[in-house]
Amino acid sequence: MLNPFFNISGPIDLSDIGKMLNIKIDGSANIQVNDIKDLTSANEKTITFFHSKKYQKFAKETKASFCLTTNSLKDYLPNTCKPIVVENVLIATSIVTAKFYPNASEDEFDMNVNNIEKIDLNTNVKYGKNVLIGSNVTIGTDCLIGHNTIIEKNVKIGDNCKIGSNNILRNTVVKNNVSILDNCVIGKKGFGFFPNKKKNLRYPHIGIVIINENCEIGCGATIDRGSMSNTEIGKNTFLDNQIHIAHNVKIGENTIIAGQVGIAGSTIIGKNVKIGGQAGISGHLKIGDNVDIAGGSGVIKSITDNSKVMGYPAKNIREFLRENR
Amino acid sequence: MLNPFFNISGPIDLSDIGKMLNIKIDGSANIQVNDIKDLTSANEKTITFFHSKKYQKFAKETKASFCLTTNSLKDYLPNTCKPIVVENVLIATSIVTAKFYPNASEDEFDMNVNNIEKIDLNTNVKYGKNVLIGSNVTIGTDCLIGHNTIIEKNVKIGDNCKIGSNNILRNTVVKNNVSILDNCVIGKKGFGFFPNKKKNLRYPHIGIVIINENCEIGCGATIDRGSMSNTEIGKNTFLDNQIHIAHNVKIGENTIIAGQVGIAGSTIIGKNVKIGGQAGISGHLKIGDNVDIAGGSGVIKSITDNSKVMGYPAKNIREFLRENR
Amino acid sequence: MLNPFFNISGPIDLSDIGKMLNIKIDGSANIQVNDIKDLTSANEKTITFFHSKKYQKFAKETKASFCLTTNSLKDYLPNTCKPIVVENVLIATSIVTAKFYPNASEDEFDMNVNNIEKIDLNTNVKYGKNVLIGSNVTIGTDCLIGHNTIIEKNVKIGDNCKIGSNNILRNTVVKNNVSILDNCVIGKKGFGFFPNKKKNLRYPHIGIVIINENCEIGCGATIDRGSMSNTEIGKNTFLDNQIHIAHNVKIGENTIIAGQVGIAGSTIIGKNVKIGGQAGISGHLKIGDNVDIAGGSGVIKSITDNSKVMGYPAKNIREFLRENR
Repeated sequence: MLNPFFNISGPIDLSDIGKMLNIKIDGSANIQVNDIKDLTSANEKTITFFHSKKYQKFAKETKASFCLTTNSLKDYLPNTCKPIVVENVLIATSIVTAKFYPNASEDEFDMNVNNIEKIDLNTNVKYGKNVLIGSNVTIGTDCLIGHNTIIEKNVKIGDNCKIGSNNILRNTVVKNNVSILDNCVIGKKGFGFFPNKKKNLRYPHIGIVIINENCEIGCGATIDRGSMSNTEIGKNTFLDNQIHIAHNVKIGENTIIAGQVGIAGSTIIGKNVKIGGQAGISGHLKIGDNVDIAGGSGVIKSITDNSKVMGYPAKNIREFLRENR
Repeated sequence: MLNPFFNISGPIDLSDIGKMLNIKIDGSANIQVNDIKDLTSANEKTITFFHSKKYQKFAKETKASFCLTTNSLKDYLPNTCKPIVVENVLIATSIVTAKFYPNASEDEFDMNVNNIEKIDLNTNVKYGKNVLIGSNVTIGTDCLIGHNTIIEKNVKIGDNCKIGSNNILRNTVVKNNVSILDNCVIGKKGFGFFPNKKKNLRYPHIGIVIINENCEIGCGATIDRGSMSNTEIGKNTFLDNQIHIAHNVKIGENTIIAGQVGIAGSTIIGKNVKIGGQAGISGHLKIGDNVDIAGGSGVIKSITDNSKVMGYPAKNIREFLRENR
Repeated sequence: MLNPFFNISGPIDLSDIGKMLNIKIDGSANIQVNDIKDLTSANEKTITFFHSKKYQKFAKETKASFCLTTNSLKDYLPNTCKPIVVENVLIATSIVTAKFYPNASEDEFDMNVNNIEKIDLNTNVKYGKNVLIGSNVTIGTDCLIGHNTIIEKNVKIGDNCKIGSNNILRNTVVKNNVSILDNCVIGKKGFGFFPNKKKNLRYPHIGIVIINENCEIGCGATIDRGSMSNTEIGKNTFLDNQIHIAHNVKIGENTIIAGQVGIAGSTIIGKNVKIGGQAGISGHLKIGDNVDIAGGSGVIKSITDNSKVMGYPAKNIREFLRENR
């Protein structure tokens, strides 16, 4: 399940999808589409999208029945996936997604919060002053929630969690024994939009943030929720202060990330990874397991398992240090 | 108009300016000075300041009638501008500015705020819990203001703006359709002062922050108000999370700035610029239109229109990638 | 005195220390240990720890009577210091520290705060809305405390201090005439723990944060308290916005640090140092007096007095600029 919070409005007729995109889709009569998902998580009767050659590997293996794509990319798709050729894949994806998930591009503050004192939590929760709780929020037993923290709609917190003060959470699942320190913003829409002179176009963010067991999230973190998939932090992964995790990022377990690190959208990071302070990782990369990234590095290529890298652009750490004696 | 908020106390006699600086200004009897401005925005009957050779281009074209400067720089000024030679231009500027704008170096929290519920806004504004509003604040129609947000004195917000939670605004003009996410501090004094053993000396910040139509400002932004000019973000420019914009910075329209970017004081950035995550731009530079700055870059020189740069120090991106294969 | 706030529970018998570590310490009968401190601040009858060859200089000069260390390191210690050989020095240190300071590894939000209006401050303090004050807090005369600021337990603020809005302070001493702007988190435990698959192990942080006279701390700063020593900011040192200062860092006086700088744990920085925006400094380094570090630099080695450095890794600035023309 991609997202337990955003209600899907579907199925939608394939011919109706053609209408909203102002194109004619051959053989679309009486065919129903259940959902829209990314290339990897899509399955039968869902529609996906494929807009850049760099995702060809995923395109070839998609299980989607339909795919918004371009004329030049459509031949990468398997026979089981019907290409729907459009002029601008991302704009088309934005339009179709907004139909399936009509509320997921909005991201206003939650007007329906209540002071936690007015809510029947049914659990052993200790809370500070001015704590606000939105609708569709559940909190496990033995949790702490600090002062001025706002838990907006669509949040599920496990047992034994410690949420500090001045945090804002929405569209987020926090598993057991997680510690979130202070001043974090978790679960807001990511920085994903279609640049457009005069007025940029926002597309829906139907993913959530999942923070797994035993994690610690430092002060001032921003962890954005996913657009077409979830943003996820693996078990027992620790984040220091002032870290930015963009939308769709996935981080493995037992990973340690030092202060002021930034990870751009859709990058996947393995387990047992160590990332030094202020390192930056570009979007859409794959960082293997047991990788060490030295502080200050700028990673612009994927990294294989067990590598140690340093520099900007990051390269083998021994090579970097030899060249920079 | 530089600043609609700080009241100017003037005109001031030129001879009085001499007195406060402990110097004698020849021919200063009965001459009035209306205002103090920077080299570019100064006009007739105003005084400006010129303290470093790197501003010689602006100095030659200034329309100011008077200029605080040094003996070695005074010859760059046009004949229409009378040099007033002082030992330390910046300290002299600080003293004169404080006379014209007696309240602009203070930056205490606004003690005169009221809970928004007690204020007659006269407009269709939806607001969260614990929202505080200072004096001299106007808010347009159809705005949203999130929980715990503090709009301190001297703020003008346009129509259809979405201000998230936990923000602090002061001395700021927000135009229509602007979205400010959460945890931002906008309009505080910049990091401008005269270093001085024992106790650094703050100088007045009489500029404001202007955020133009259709902008989006990400979570955790700090945007400082200008010292002698305004800090300004152009129309439809989008900022990701954890960005720092220093005082006097001007950013053009349709610009996109990714997470954790920092822009140092007085730098001017063109329109249609793209700046990748964690890039840093030094102060007092000019970045042209349509420039692409790769993530992680450190820009220490001005960049001409239509350039693509990468690296630290940033250079042509092809050259950088060729050298760093 | 390392820490005026955390109560020490001691002295502890050396034989009991042996028991908690499951080792037998020869000649430990009836010997009392008063405290646990780092190599430099330890004195007679205290126990210290020495886990890495890079601290050999400090080890040779320690005044501690006992030292948790390894077989291969023990010969660096002076004759006055009895080595206690353990398998894992840091885990042993964590166990012993937790015995001396049973409350210093917890870091939950302070549940015992009260609204400042309910507290008898006995001083001329002006405060905003929703200000919360914990136990064991003292505030000097003529201070300002902004809206929503939370001063948790164990904080001592001097005279004439200006604390802005939305700050969280704990375990911190703020001397006179200090200005802390908005959205800072000061005094939380540092990012120090023993990585351990399944569940990382936190160790106690018994240090505090000390901010000396005339300092200014910019918006969004995170300054972590020390683990075995204090984190300290020298007199008249100014920090710009979004700066991260890790645990045990010590910064000298009259130092200027620009926006988004990060300083990793236990690094010592001299006086009159200038650090440009976004620079990063690795942990356990010594930066001399009068050092200039250019913006964006990544410092991975200690730097001698009066040096000017730039680059990543940072080197002599002239050399760096010559190589990067």
